[in-house]
Amino acid sequence: MTIKITGNLKSTCTLRIITIINELGLEFELEQPEWTTMKSPEYLRDKHPFGKIPVLHEDGYQIFESRAIVRYLVAKHKSSLAPTDPQKLGVLEQFLSVEYSYFDPAFSSWVAEKVFKPAFGRGQPDPVKLEELTKKADSVLDVYEKLLVGKDYLTGEYSIADIVHLPYFSYAINNGYDMGDRPNVKRWWTNISEKPAWKKAIAGAQ
Amino acid sequence: MTIKITGNLKSTCTLRIITIINELGLEFELEQPEWTTMKSPEYLRDKHPFGKIPVLHEDGYQIFESRAIVRYLVAKHKSSLAPTDPQKLGVLEQFLSVEYSYFDPAFSSWVAEKVFKPAFGRGQPDPVKLEELTKKADSVLDVYEKLLVGKDYLTGEYSIADIVHLPYFSYAINNGYDMGDRPNVKRWWTNISEKPAWKKAIAGAQ
Ligand SMILES: N[C@@H](CCC(=O)N[C@@H](CS)C(=O)NCC(=O)O)C(=O)O
Ligand SMILES: N[C@@H](CCC(=O)N[C@@H](CS)C(=O)NCC(=O)O)C(=O)O
Repeated sequence: MTIKITGNLKSTCTLRIITIINELGLEFELEQPEWTTMKSPEYLRDKHPFGKIPVLHEDGYQIFESRAIVRYLVAKHKSSLAPTDPQKLGVLEQFLSVEYSYFDPAFSSWVAEKVFKPAFGRGQPDPVKLEELTKKADSVLDVYEKLLVGKDYLTGEYSIADIVHLPYFSYAINNGYDMGDRPNVKRWWTNISEKPAWKKAIAGAQ
Repeated sequence: MTIKITGNLKSTCTLRIITIINELGLEFELEQPEWTTMKSPEYLRDKHPFGKIPVLHEDGYQIFESRAIVRYLVAKHKSSLAPTDPQKLGVLEQFLSVEYSYFDPAFSSWVAEKVFKPAFGRGQPDPVKLEELTKKADSVLDVYEKLLVGKDYLTGEYSIADIVHLPYFSYAINNGYDMGDRPNVKRWWTNISEKPAWKKAIAGAQ
């Protein structure tokens, strides 16, 4: 059982699955393609039909899409990070969809403008655009502040619904995004960002 | 066990869960809020914190987000529409993520411009924008044409990964989107759009 990942140690989507791999106490090998390689006919045919990372390979089995890989790994290892009781699963999936429907669009756009644009030599962040994106991100966090009232984690228990948020939230916070005066969000962020599995993942991205 | 849905019979996200309810042979009651009601403080507090539909209620249990509701219902009813074997689950989740990551952004934007913009009195579709959106949608279908080689359904077997595509694809096709000369996509579309569960759902939307 060897896990091989096609990905990049600094990529948010790859960090998402590395955190789960760390939580499960597993090891992995990394194959790091060039950004241009990811659009080659061979890559599109053999790895990811939309030309993205990450891809997981395990003894002939192969899937792509970070949030699918996360669900696969916890199911395979019967981890309590994803409860299987239908009602608990429903709540877990509700928060996984909240992440992908509202949090990710806001925070991935913020990080793209503030961090990746200059990092990939595409110019400096546009201050007007960044202010707009910051407002959007703030409005999402206003809802999270309510979703997290009296809770340490989104579903109540630490789960993959928390973990999927880590990469983009961390990149935003470490690059000047201010989560403001939102005590519930702050408590949640501390709870999840101090997990050893995340610290190990992000240390590998330095 | 009474299923109540807060939703709208014409809304794509509501149709997604009604199709599953039909597949499982279940009944439901509908509560149809006004579009403006969905942004009221009460609605945001009691129903959906982001002011959306659908919401599922079942004997005190309540969750929102259509794709979460889909996964909850099939898990609860142990339906083969969502296999639980980890490797099969991984493939299922891969295609569910393909839908939400690539298909939905393209086709929901197309339908918003072509169908919902005029329907909600926001003016006529912008031809330049529509052409751009059509190109984007076409490029997604080019990938689907390859994903569906030799297959009747995305994972091989009929599953919730197929079902989640139905509402937006149907709205696009019924409003002038041409899926072109893509035999695999066409076969797939015929296979899924002729299911009685979908026909019953869409009949309710007329
Ligand atoms: N929905 C996909 C998104 C994958 C994705 O966008 N990956 C980024 C890295 S975080 C990528 O490959 N970017 C390169 C590109 O889009 O060309 C997932 O969750 O895996
Ligand atoms: N990610 C959500 C999306 C929900 C959604 O956007 N619902 C639409 C109807 S299909 C809605 O409520 N639109 C009204 C609005 O955004 O104001 C889901 O899958 O349930």
